Amino acid sequence: MNMTEQRKTAEYIISESIKAVLPETAVKTAMEKLPPVEGHIYLAAIGKAAWNMASAAAACLGDRLYEGIVITKYGHSKGNIPRTRIFEAGHPVPDTNTYAATKEALLMTQHLTEKDLVLFLVSGGGSALFESPAINPDELETITKELLSCGASIQEINTIRKHLSKVKGGRFARHCAPAKVFAVVLSDVIGNPLDVIASGPAYPDESTSEQALSIAGKYKLTISEAAKKTLADETPKVLDNVTTEITGSVSQLVQAAAEAAGQKGYSSLILADTVDCEACEAGKMAASIARFYASDSKETAVIFGGETVVHLKGKGLGGRNQELAVAAAEGISGLKNAAVFSIGSDGTDGPTDAAGGYVDGSTKDKLLKKGISIYNVLSENDAYHALKACDGLIKTGPTGTNVNDVTVILIN
Amino acid sequence: MNMTEQRKTAEYIISESIKAVLPETAVKTAMEKLPPVEGHIYLAAIGKAAWNMASAAAACLGDRLYEGIVITKYGHSKGNIPRTRIFEAGHPVPDTNTYAATKEALLMTQHLTEKDLVLFLVSGGGSALFESPAINPDELETITKELLSCGASIQEINTIRKHLSKVKGGRFARHCAPAKVFAVVLSDVIGNPLDVIASGPAYPDESTSEQALSIAGKYKLTISEAAKKTLADETPKVLDNVTTEITGSVSQLVQAAAEAAGQKGYSSLILADTVDCEACEAGKMAASIARFYASDSKETAVIFGGETVVHLKGKGLGGRNQELAVAAAEGISGLKNAAVFSIGSDGTDGPTDAAGGYVDGSTKDKLLKKGISIYNVLSENDAYHALKACDGLIKTGPTGTNVNDVTVILIN
Repeated sequence: MNMTEQRKTAEYIISESIKAVLPETAVKTAMEKLPPVEGHIYLAAIGKAAWNMASAAAACLGDRLYEGIVITKYGHSKGNIPRTRIFEAGHPVPDTNTYAATKEALLMTQHLTEKDLVLFLVSGGGSALFESPAINPDELETITKELLSCGASIQEINTIRKHLSKVKGGRFARHCAPAKVFAVVLSDVIGNPLDVIASGPAYPDESTSEQALSIAGKYKLTISEAAKKTLADETPKVLDNVTTEITGSVSQLVQAAAEAAGQKGYSSLILADTVDCEACEAGKMAASIARFYASDSKETAVIFGGETVVHLKGKGLGGRNQELAVAAAEGISGLKNAAVFSIGSDGTDGPTDAAGGYVDGSTKDKLLKKGISIYNVLSENDAYHALKACDGLIKTGPTGTNVNDVTVILIN
Repeated sequence: MNMTEQRKTAEYIISESIKAVLPETAVKTAMEKLPPVEGHIYLAAIGKAAWNMASAAAACLGDRLYEGIVITKYGHSKGNIPRTRIFEAGHPVPDTNTYAATKEALLMTQHLTEKDLVLFLVSGGGSALFESPAINPDELETITKELLSCGASIQEINTIRKHLSKVKGGRFARHCAPAKVFAVVLSDVIGNPLDVIASGPAYPDESTSEQALSIAGKYKLTISEAAKKTLADETPKVLDNVTTEITGSVSQLVQAAAEAAGQKGYSSLILADTVDCEACEAGKMAASIARFYASDSKETAVIFGGETVVHLKGKGLGGRNQELAVAAAEGISGLKNAAVFSIGSDGTDGPTDAAGGYVDGSTKDKLLKKGISIYNVLSENDAYHALKACDGLIKTGPTGTNVNDVTVILIN
């Protein structure tokens, strides 16, 4: 197989794996597990992908959808959805529209019976877009600001906020009871921590009122007697009316990449789906793996997913996936049967118009011929221009989903 | 399986994999491939492990060994070997004993017939310990100093030195012709580049006289007419009397670790044998892999080898394997069925008396209880003391071999 065909294989794996984690596909897959419902089906969709998820769910449900509400970011809704009201609100900071829309969702889901079901569609940004303060909103804002400036940890901040909300920390699911809640979560957080994603409106809360009150004391927060009473009101520790389906996560992304590679005749091996190390070091590691498998000359795809990090040293243009690819180019230089590519599933890697980068055994030489040294590129964090110079940019355009990154080592 | 048994499994894998790459074992394995010999068998052993390798080979050969020479570092020979003269010489800088001993090796191997065989045993340090200048030794020393101070690359320096040597760059093997040369190479260089190990006395040289002369011109080296003529004398580009067996390399180290894990009931997966990234990032990657496989709860050992690097930031005590292990401890914290360990095959990781480190899902908590934060340990490069505090140091003592490192992720 020549390099061009290897690149074509890469493009196929990329498009198939992104397709698998689009909100529409993810929701359709999850809907297959929808439990039987005797009563009405209500839909509440929150987050940046709420409209896409709701639209797909409504198409699946048809006439079975009784009533729905979508709360998404300004500019993120794309038209009408049958029997569904669509709200847009502030992100990343909640505003009055957030509170108004969330109130509507709470109204829609009160007084339900145990025969009813709330289809709760959750995507990134849900924490800001779905909020109904259990205290005066102005006081909540003051407390939040105090917490941010006093050095409280993110866990401490979340403990306080969950106890001051009508929906976070499992309270939305409790509000829906005795109706069943079928939560479909499009995860953009590594490891899919359900208590963290959208602050867990349908997930039991591990933090306690006691902890919340002790944090308030520790940082000497100025809180009203009413707010103190609210903090003392415990969040749900058990929720027996909720079923959760995590979908469109990085796990599905790497799984889909493995399946697509398999369709092209490669043996696939998934190594990890929570890679979180430095991008260029992950690239070096990918190159070591490529060197090991390259000596075998079997068609193999080694795949890992996650979200690497870049500690900026230079002033160039790039993103973590492009940086990973350029770092790998050094280590696979000269191999005739190896390629490495890495993409962000949202289609925008760093502040660039590329999803990621593709390199093979010839990349280093191509760059050298243009006077570009990989060492300098990495020192300057300028992977974008290097990849542009060797036709190594992968462009998909914004994909409408965001479930972290996937890296593939292809051996022919 | 409880943690203690997992640790026992780790100790077993460590001792078995080191055993497989000891010079004695490595030579014995390689000797099984010794070609049939009608004439005499001569032995030439060079490098820091020369005595151990020669001793093992002599034991295999018995009366079939006709004559031998060992050239090793001062203090590295351990007694008599039948029919073999033992020389000790300077390392890392050659001295007059180097030249004298190498001359004896050249005398022993001249005028051989095509029925004879030279068993050539090569180990680390061979480049300094095996040298016979093709020009006046004082002039060679002057040229080397000039090269080192003028900014020449390591490749340029080697090109000049190979062309000024009677043994480097394939010349020793040509000298032995028409006798056959069976070279057994104990590799301590990642990727086993045979032209680099000991400067390739029995490996065809890719660098040319033309390049050597052009380098001499480029840096305006002050060289005599005699030396110019020597540079113009081409090194061998083809050697049809040589068979090479790489043994005791990091490849065998990871292979042996995989086999040992297999004997304990684990499915083994080797990922790479040339890992060269930052130690703590390799540790994070190992933790990501552990998290992925841990959810499966099958007994799995994921193995990689190579030599990671540490860019020192702090003033603590440690080594690259200990640092890798501590970094992994953070990412596998809380996993009940995962352990990661990493060792240097020489038994001395960094400037410490430990071979490496062992961590599992409980390590981070154990350290926290003693007031030790992994973040601080890594910032201070103080892995040794952290591992000591949680019983995570692996001690083997100096092993007598040096074929890089092996890292194992154990899942029960």
